Amino acid sequence: MKIALAQVNPTVGDLENNTRRILAFVKRARDEGADLVVCPEMAIVGYPPMDLLLKKALVKKNLEKLEEIARASANIGIVCGFVSRNEAGGAPLLHNSAALCHGGKVVATVHKSLLPTYDIFDERRYFEPSVGVKPVEFQGVKIGLSICEDIWNDRTFWPRPMYPHDPIEDLVARGAEILINISASPFVVGRPEMKARMLANVARRHKIPLVAVNQVGGNTGILFEGGSTCFNSKGEVVARAKSFEEDFLIFDTEAASCPVRSWPHGDAAMLYAALVMGTRDYMRKCGFKTAVIGVSGGIDSALVAAIAVDALGAESVFGVFMPSRYSSERSRDDALALARNLGIGLRIISIENIFKKYLDALKGAFKGRDEDVTEENIQARIRGNVLMAMSNKFGDLVLATGNKSELAVGYCTLYGDMSGGLTVIGDVPKTTVYELAGHVNREREIIPAGILKKPPSAELRPNQTDQDTLPPYEELDPILKLYIEESADRDEIVARGHDARLVDRVLKMVDRNEYKRRQAAPCLRVTAKAFGFGRRFPIAQGWR
Amino acid sequence: MKIALAQVNPTVGDLENNTRRILAFVKRARDEGADLVVCPEMAIVGYPPMDLLLKKALVKKNLEKLEEIARASANIGIVCGFVSRNEAGGAPLLHNSAALCHGGKVVATVHKSLLPTYDIFDERRYFEPSVGVKPVEFQGVKIGLSICEDIWNDRTFWPRPMYPHDPIEDLVARGAEILINISASPFVVGRPEMKARMLANVARRHKIPLVAVNQVGGNTGILFEGGSTCFNSKGEVVARAKSFEEDFLIFDTEAASCPVRSWPHGDAAMLYAALVMGTRDYMRKCGFKTAVIGVSGGIDSALVAAIAVDALGAESVFGVFMPSRYSSERSRDDALALARNLGIGLRIISIENIFKKYLDALKGAFKGRDEDVTEENIQARIRGNVLMAMSNKFGDLVLATGNKSELAVGYCTLYGDMSGGLTVIGDVPKTTVYELAGHVNREREIIPAGILKKPPSAELRPNQTDQDTLPPYEELDPILKLYIEESADRDEIVARGHDARLVDRVLKMVDRNEYKRRQAAPCLRVTAKAFGFGRRFPIAQGWR
Repeated sequence: MKIALAQVNPTVGDLENNTRRILAFVKRARDEGADLVVCPEMAIVGYPPMDLLLKKALVKKNLEKLEEIARASANIGIVCGFVSRNEAGGAPLLHNSAALCHGGKVVATVHKSLLPTYDIFDERRYFEPSVGVKPVEFQGVKIGLSICEDIWNDRTFWPRPMYPHDPIEDLVARGAEILINISASPFVVGRPEMKARMLANVARRHKIPLVAVNQVGGNTGILFEGGSTCFNSKGEVVARAKSFEEDFLIFDTEAASCPVRSWPHGDAAMLYAALVMGTRDYMRKCGFKTAVIGVSGGIDSALVAAIAVDALGAESVFGVFMPSRYSSERSRDDALALARNLGIGLRIISIENIFKKYLDALKGAFKGRDEDVTEENIQARIRGNVLMAMSNKFGDLVLATGNKSELAVGYCTLYGDMSGGLTVIGDVPKTTVYELAGHVNREREIIPAGILKKPPSAELRPNQTDQDTLPPYEELDPILKLYIEESADRDEIVARGHDARLVDRVLKMVDRNEYKRRQAAPCLRVTAKAFGFGRRFPIAQGWR
Repeated sequence: MKIALAQVNPTVGDLENNTRRILAFVKRARDEGADLVVCPEMAIVGYPPMDLLLKKALVKKNLEKLEEIARASANIGIVCGFVSRNEAGGAPLLHNSAALCHGGKVVATVHKSLLPTYDIFDERRYFEPSVGVKPVEFQGVKIGLSICEDIWNDRTFWPRPMYPHDPIEDLVARGAEILINISASPFVVGRPEMKARMLANVARRHKIPLVAVNQVGGNTGILFEGGSTCFNSKGEVVARAKSFEEDFLIFDTEAASCPVRSWPHGDAAMLYAALVMGTRDYMRKCGFKTAVIGVSGGIDSALVAAIAVDALGAESVFGVFMPSRYSSERSRDDALALARNLGIGLRIISIENIFKKYLDALKGAFKGRDEDVTEENIQARIRGNVLMAMSNKFGDLVLATGNKSELAVGYCTLYGDMSGGLTVIGDVPKTTVYELAGHVNREREIIPAGILKKPPSAELRPNQTDQDTLPPYEELDPILKLYIEESADRDEIVARGHDARLVDRVLKMVDRNEYKRRQAAPCLRVTAKAFGFGRRFPIAQGWR
């Protein structure tokens, strides 16, 4: 059997264009002689649609689009993810479903059995799980068709499976001769390799081939790497689609070899590709063509500018350097060198006169009070206001440049450097920012060496460095990873060898700054636990 | 049987203080001769704890606190909500549970059967439902003990029950002689009356008494009215606790009469009381004592100032009037009169000189471009920056003053008038703002008549009024209610008699401004669908 993998990049809610893309791949599959073409989970709607699923008109239109796709199946089989109504009534109102279309109509529908409801996933909010599974038949072959999470519960791979039953076991027990899993499985650094091992194990264990088709692209902050893969019955990779872009390929179960595209090599390259894709897709799917970035002469904004240039092209990226009385000549030189290396425009707008007028206006109110963080925040907020003014006047999207370490401990100014439509590296710890900068400079110096070498500073008071306020990032980041990504408690973190007083200080900073993160722009999620939608903490709370 | 209702106001995550409060009520109940004291759902942890539930140390401590409470049950029964571990293993890891304690230990535990997973509720994220229910026995009486949602599925009350089974029916079938329901059931305007009718129906239908104990207080933006109520077997209200404050009362099943506290009379009074409680609790639970408000001379900031004064006292509320070239004398006079009437301090800080310096600094960049919304936003953002500076310098919380209508259509400036820690009236439509202002002025003029009468204006350009940009609020608000609260589609709204072109325009404004609301401060939820956590839309999306 010749199976085409249609690895599409849908825009959540854009059913017209998503369907058009699917139909283009169906045509190509037919032209290239495929028997069956497979599209990702919920391909018509795009994943994750969130509360768009509560719109009855959207569900109705998604069913109409499925019919349209089915009509294209006269001479080919099509597997496509969609949303179906829970005919039993009651709540939840929907199923997360896959249709097998053939002969111009839907010939079988299966529903997702295991519904992830953790982290960024809210599937129990919308979907009723399937009760029981059985293979669907196509050209006399029994296909074990499943959806994403359904294949993530193998007891021979996971020491402690999350759910009590394994739908894949059931499908195989009921005679499945080949497995097809359609997914919208998000990217996390290191996870593509793990997914490949996990899927290989499923194929090997059940001794049947497995075709896994994953969504690609970014939707708001959630990224999908694609990397759709086919395994033979020994669990060997026999075909693989590209990562981080749309792709189409045909897996011939009878052929000696099929295309196996390589991944970006190493975590930094993979992460960088994910951030570029995420930035490009966020801009495009929000309708923006140009981006503006506050370039400070520091490493965070340098990295974000480099990502933006790779995502949008240098001609679509604008930098603004906004010096104050505390900005060094060196920062200015570094910002200019960066802009030159990237080939982007850089405008210099001094905030000094504006800052003076704020101090004048507040002189009466602040009489007798010392300078403190207030005056630092005013400067950061002037810069935010200038960037937003550029955005308002020219239609650029402001890309915020804060990293995960800063956001974690609140070393950032709400309405200041946190301003923007997208926090590009908001899920990237500072130590990883340096690794990514190294990746950017792998062939030639793009981020000036001066930026890489100088101690990090917000330059909001004389001779300030980050380490006046924060522990060294090499100490901070591992604590943050344990606390945020691994949900480790204070005592567990200390038991892992971190200084107890430092741990207490760091955890307190993280807890106290929830209010800032609540008002942050979305970030591109690249770790197992990003700030934002998948991490839900109350603000008024007393847990210490 | 004498049953004490312990209507506590817990702080989410503050297990120490929550337990202290519970134990104080237990002591009082014992002192007053009660047989049984009943605390709300999840009283030890406070509701909604959100992802604090993923902290293993918190779950452990909550079990220790339950043991501490159980030890106080030597001579009295205690019913208390807590979180228990799902001993079956797997995900979810917890149950939402109620313990019956007596003789110094936990004698029975029941789990919640119906787990709300919609709007602000994420219970399937954390909890495994109960499988089957049976009454618990206390002093020879079979008590049908249930938790919140469990009592919301009566097929004789709801035309279309949400869940396939009714745990209360099961409890009664298994011999329950009295029903106890513990809840953390949030406030929504008009819902307390509906809840009372619904609960009365349950008691009447099953012909047994019902004791319903609800959480009171605000936790971040979610408000709970309390109003714990007892019904006799005819469904008549025989005892009721206060609304919007902690309360304690004893319901004697044998007595001729028990205390029945009245509710605030009418929707406006109820809503106002909820907003005052929510503001007070948000401030207190976040550790703030003083608030600062940008007082513009308009109705929104006037209402927020009045609420803040009722929540915190006039001495803890500070107004700042920030005139620009476009501010009218009248606004200044109105702001001053309001401050005088409320007895709050009002500082005047002109933004004019700061604004001029922004225009100077941007002159080069904006050369050849007309003035537009950019210059309006700069002014709003200067004001936001000034308020945040006051907050930083003096430790006041900034209360944002935007209303729901503005937030819905994006008639507000991100990082400008949206700045603040809490959006007090962010779930109150503009037409309701006027009703609340009338309520504030019910006895004497607090909000000056001039503020009530003048046409709403942002005063960001010459002679501006809201209706230059927006339809009249009397037309706008009903469309917003249908779209946001009732999830009506475009065609349904038009079918309800609204002008099709206006509907299209309004819906487009709502959809396009999701990015602003994503970065808004939490608001106090008072309708069936507030912006924020219970309404989850993607930003990069193509549904129109």
